[in-house]
Parts: sequence; C-alpha cells; structure tokens
Amino acid sequence: MDVTDLYQGALAELSAVFARVDDASVDAAVDTIARAKRIACYGVGREGLQIKGLAMRLFHLGRSVAVVGDMTTPPLGPGDLLIVSAGPGDFSTVAGLMGVATEAGAETLVVTAQADGGAARRADHVLVIPAQTMADDTGSAATSVLPMGSLFEGAQYVLFEVMILKLRAKLGIDPALMRANHTNLE
Amino acid sequence: MDVTDLYQGALAELSAVFARVDDASVDAAVDTIARAKRIACYGVGREGLQIKGLAMRLFHLGRSVAVVGDMTTPPLGPGDLLIVSAGPGDFSTVAGLMGVATEAGAETLVVTAQADGGAARRADHVLVIPAQTMADDTGSAATSVLPMGSLFEGAQYVLFEVMILKLRAKLGIDPALMRANHTNLE
Amino acid sequence: MDVTDLYQGALAELSAVFARVDDASVDAAVDTIARAKRIACYGVGREGLQIKGLAMRLFHLGRSVAVVGDMTTPPLGPGDLLIVSAGPGDFSTVAGLMGVATEAGAETLVVTAQADGGAARRADHVLVIPAQTMADDTGSAATSVLPMGSLFEGAQYVLFEVMILKLRAKLGIDPALMRANHTNLE
Amino acid sequence: MDVTDLYQGALAELSAVFARVDDASVDAAVDTIARAKRIACYGVGREGLQIKGLAMRLFHLGRSVAVVGDMTTPPLGPGDLLIVSAGPGDFSTVAGLMGVATEAGAETLVVTAQADGGAARRADHVLVIPAQTMADDTGSAATSVLPMGSLFEGAQYVLFEVMILKLRAKLGIDPALMRANHTNLE
Repeated sequence: MDVTDLYQGALAELSAVFARVDDASVDAAVDTIARAKRIACYGVGREGLQIKGLAMRLFHLGRSVAVVGDMTTPPLGPGDLLIVSAGPGDFSTVAGLMGVATEAGAETLVVTAQADGGAARRADHVLVIPAQTMADDTGSAATSVLPMGSLFEGAQYVLFEVMILKLRAKLGIDPALMRANHTNLE
Repeated sequence: MDVTDLYQGALAELSAVFARVDDASVDAAVDTIARAKRIACYGVGREGLQIKGLAMRLFHLGRSVAVVGDMTTPPLGPGDLLIVSAGPGDFSTVAGLMGVATEAGAETLVVTAQADGGAARRADHVLVIPAQTMADDTGSAATSVLPMGSLFEGAQYVLFEVMILKLRAKLGIDPALMRANHTNLE
Repeated sequence: MDVTDLYQGALAELSAVFARVDDASVDAAVDTIARAKRIACYGVGREGLQIKGLAMRLFHLGRSVAVVGDMTTPPLGPGDLLIVSAGPGDFSTVAGLMGVATEAGAETLVVTAQADGGAARRADHVLVIPAQTMADDTGSAATSVLPMGSLFEGAQYVLFEVMILKLRAKLGIDPALMRANHTNLE
Repeated sequence: MDVTDLYQGALAELSAVFARVDDASVDAAVDTIARAKRIACYGVGREGLQIKGLAMRLFHLGRSVAVVGDMTTPPLGPGDLLIVSAGPGDFSTVAGLMGVATEAGAETLVVTAQADGGAARRADHVLVIPAQTMADDTGSAATSVLPMGSLFEGAQYVLFEVMILKLRAKLGIDPALMRANHTNLE
C-alpha cells in the first residue's frame, strides 16, 4: 500500500467535503455559539472526541463551556446552547439530552451528515457536513478510503478549527490570551 | 457469607478510621480550599473517582474548580490550589503534576494514607486518612475486610462529604443554591 | 460543627440503609453479574463515579467489563448485561441506553432508590438501595445530614464493595490475582 | 475572512506535513503496534483526544488496547506497548508513565513533533510528525494558519487513520469485522 497516496487520498476527500459545506450554515453556527450564554458539548465515540476538541478551543476563547459528563457541567436554560454531534443521524443519548435541553429552554445545535436525521429534525440549528458516516459506509454507498465514520470525524476536526478562527475574529480575542488560557496541568 | 456482617464490618472499619483522623488537619484543608482562587483536582484509579466526586460538590458550592484532564481545566498559578490523592504514598503522574503546580506558584494539598510518602513530603498541605491502601493490603499488614485500597477510598468518600458540609457552612452557601448548580444534562 | 458527629452521623445513616436493603436482591444481582458474558456499566454524575468504581473491581475480578463512553466498549447483545444507576428514578441517557441494550437482546440491571421509577420499570433486574437521592432531598422529605444524593452514592460504594466480595468468593478468584490485574499506569 | 480559503489552507498545510513524514518510521510504528501483546494509549489535552481516537480504531481491529485512566486498563509488562503523544517535546505525566512502563519491561512509542525532545529521547520507538505545536506557535516560529498545536493534532488524526488502514491490511482484518466491534451503546 502506498502510504503517500493514502495521505493525499484522505486529504482530497476532505477537500471535496468542504466544497460541499454550506458557508452560510457555518456562519450561522458561529453566530449561535458567539451569542450563547453557557455552552455544553456532547458527542459519542470518535465524534465525541472532536466535540471535546471544540470544547477546549471554546474554553481557550474564554467562552463559558463544559463537556456533558464532566463534574463541572452546569445546568442549561434559556440563553444557553447544547452542541451535539450525530453524524449518522441520531443516537439514543443525543436524543435524550436534546430533549432535556429543549424542555429547559436552551437551544440546540446539531452537527450531522444527515440533514433529515432524527437529531437534525428536532434541533434549533443544524450544521451539515456532507461526509461518509456509519450510515453509509457499507456496500455501494461507501465512497471513502477511510473506514466507518472517519471522513466525517476528520471533517469535523477541520471545520471546528475554521469555526474557532472565525469566532476568534468575531469576538476579538487576542491569540496570546487564547494561548494563556491553556492549562499547564499536563 | 453473611452480607449483613459485611456491611456492618465495612462501616465499623470506616468508623475506626475517623476515630484516628486529625480534626485540625481536616479544618486546615477546608480553610485551604475555601481561600483558593482556582482549584484543580487529580487522582488515579478509584481514588480519582472520589476526587472527582469532591470536585462536583465544590462546583455545586460555586467554587472555581476543574478536574485535571478535562477540556476546561485552566492553568494554575499563585493563589490557586491543586488537590491530589496519593493513598499509598505516591504516583508518577501525581508527582509530575505537583511539580508543575509548585513551579507555577500554586499550592498543593495531598490526601494520603502515608504521612511520610513522596507526595506528602513535597506537598504544601497534607491530609492523612489512616486507612489501608495498596501500600499495606497484603500479608500480615492487611487489616481490612475490603480488598486493596477500598477502605481508604470509602473513607475519602465520607471525609469529602463532611468537608463539603463544613465548606458550605463556612462559605454561607444556601443548600438550595448548591442544588440549583447541579446539571440537568443527564 | 462537630466533625466527629458528622462522620458518625453519616455512617449511622448508611448502616440504617443496609438494614433496609433486601439481601435476596443483592444475591440475585451478584448471580446476574456472575453469569453475564460481557458487562457494560453506565451512570451519570456522582452515581456514575460509583458505577465506574464497580467496573474497575469487576475488571480486577477478570470479568469482561467496560464503561459506556470509553473507547474500548464493545457492542452488547444476547448474554450480555448493561448495569446502570438511576438513583432518583430515571435519566434521559439511562433510558436511551437501556432501550438500545434491550433491543439488542442484552439484559439490564438497574440500581436505584425508586423501585417504581422509570428505569426500574423497564429493567430486567432491579437492585433497590432505599436511600435519599435528589428525588427526595428537599423539604420534609429530606432525612439525611448529607446533601442531595450523597447518602445513595455512599451506599452504592459500600454495597458494590460487598457485592465484589461475594463475587470474588462465588467465582473463586484469588485476592492476589485480583490485585495483579490492577494497572501500573498511574 | 474567506472560509473556503481557510479550509484549503489548513488542508494544504496538512499535505505539506505528510510530504515531510518519514514513511519508514510510520511502517516501523505499525510493526511495533502489530506485534505488541497489550497496548495502552495516553496523551494530554487535544493530543490526548487523537490518541483516544487511535485507541478506538485499534479496539475495532481486535487489538488488546486500553486508554490510560480508564477503569479497565491492565498493567503493562514485557511484550506490551505504551503509546504516548508529546507534540511539543514532553509533559510531566507522559514522563511519569513512560518511566513506569519502561521499568515494568514494556516498550514505549512516542508520537511527537520534537525528535530531540525529552519524550523522544527516552522512548524505544519514535514517530515524528513535523508540524507546528505549542513549542513553536509564537512569533516568527509560527507558520500555521491554525492556532497553537492544531496542525500537529490534525496531522495525528490523518496519520493514525492511515496507520489503521495499514494495520488492517497487515493483520488481515475484514472491514466488516472491524465494524462489528463498534459499540451500540451510544
């Protein structure tokens, strides 16, 4: 197997994903995050890892943010935002938490590959990443060199970084301040 | 095996531990926590679980607190406090984090069964729980009906709850406020 | 505040809880765990910490066990067991995961203070700990010196330790082997 | 800010990183992982997230793998492998864990941007990703459009996916089997 081709193949696939991402949805998601009072983030499996990476960058930007399941997660209510990931459309725990957040008056933002999935249908805000997930990774539906939901998760990584750059500009955060918020407990 | 005897045996062992705990050390630890600007908590294994339980209650009390390893942990510096657990005396990651915290000007509080252990020797504040850990759970040293470090960890649970009650009184926090800080994202 | 009285008060409350625990339910839960092929454990908040402590001890006993949300959690199916905690009766994520497990043919075991709660009603096996949780911690319903769900969580700690002792005997596991399974990566 | 340019800028930077990655090192790392008996993975911050993503894919491949800090992590010894991330060169907890693993007879594999960093110097195996980290993200040393260590972390994501593809081929694992190992508890 030619490793170089694998790298470039994966990057070409990611590039193609972003050619299909709707810029207006990204800007809307950035606005939603920027005006949220408190933010909580949740995702399962490897999507959850990307969501956590976003949470750390939001913390670096000085936002009031927490990861669901951590000991220091506040309750959400009006003015707050729950960000969830549901690549293949929906998950039982995502559905449960969205229900709680909505009932408490918080808004919900779903990142998904399935614009018509269960999570997207019940969300206040939807950000679609048109990339392969475990909803379409088998048989003739599969299009990625990467396994399972890896293309979606990699696209989340790049998308979230770009959103952080846009949030940093929008909120006028000095990169040095962002850096100073990083923990030394490592 | 008589279950009832096991329960009462475990509780009697816990009771004996607290007969040996130094009240002045507990009060000093409570004072240290009460005046800390930012608090970070760390522990390994099942001790780490008890440390996390303490962190959640400190969060409920409105303290600025984080668990090491979470995405939203700030850097520590002067005026801040690192709380670690080192039941059997020391751990490599505990030692590493204590070094970072001390170098950054933060104070350290160690909860341990070994007053002369490595972690205690390098700490600013030490809280000793005289209970069996994996430092003395084999051969003739073993005294508990519970395995390995379970007596120490159970004693941490009870001790931390009592410390929270004392902190709640000292800080004048209304129980209703504490409760209102609990997350609904469950 | 008299610290000594707080310790003994908390331990007396725990003792009273175990006077009300049904031994047959505990033995049934132990049997259910002993015969499960694969086990996954889940709980929210501080209940979740106690569930994780149980998971580590089950791992020490050599059981095939995982914590939901970890990277190495297998899928559950027939012959497998999902253990969840739902002290005050039910949680949205607990409900979601129980649904998934049941649909996949796995059995479910709920540890709760509410024998008639949502989680208990949909479970295959129920283990009731009759202790204060956030379902009855306010007004005249409150009976514990400890805040919120602390009595329930402390009772979980002791109960799970006793269950581990019973499992160790039932499975014939040498304490030395159990100890040898503990990680050195600390 | 032109979002499209940011995506393509980030992907172009990643592409340039992989033009500099040493294929022989990647193959050596794949071989090391393939022959390890038990594997444990550790990383801090957002590097830690990428390490966890690798751990989940290794689990999907049927490897005996755990994440340090989880309840089900075994002890490591001869024949076992500790994989750590130390992008900017070293971390106190990484150093501590590497010491423990080495003393116990396990091998260590470090993923880093600093071939001469502390972690690399004490490792048995080193995999260098030549990308910006927090060791060179300020002043004239900074070269990436992305903040802090984001380029390194994104490169880890892509590199680990490629390594998984190579491992899958090397170990002869059917993609369907890999997929069947994914948890349903989401």
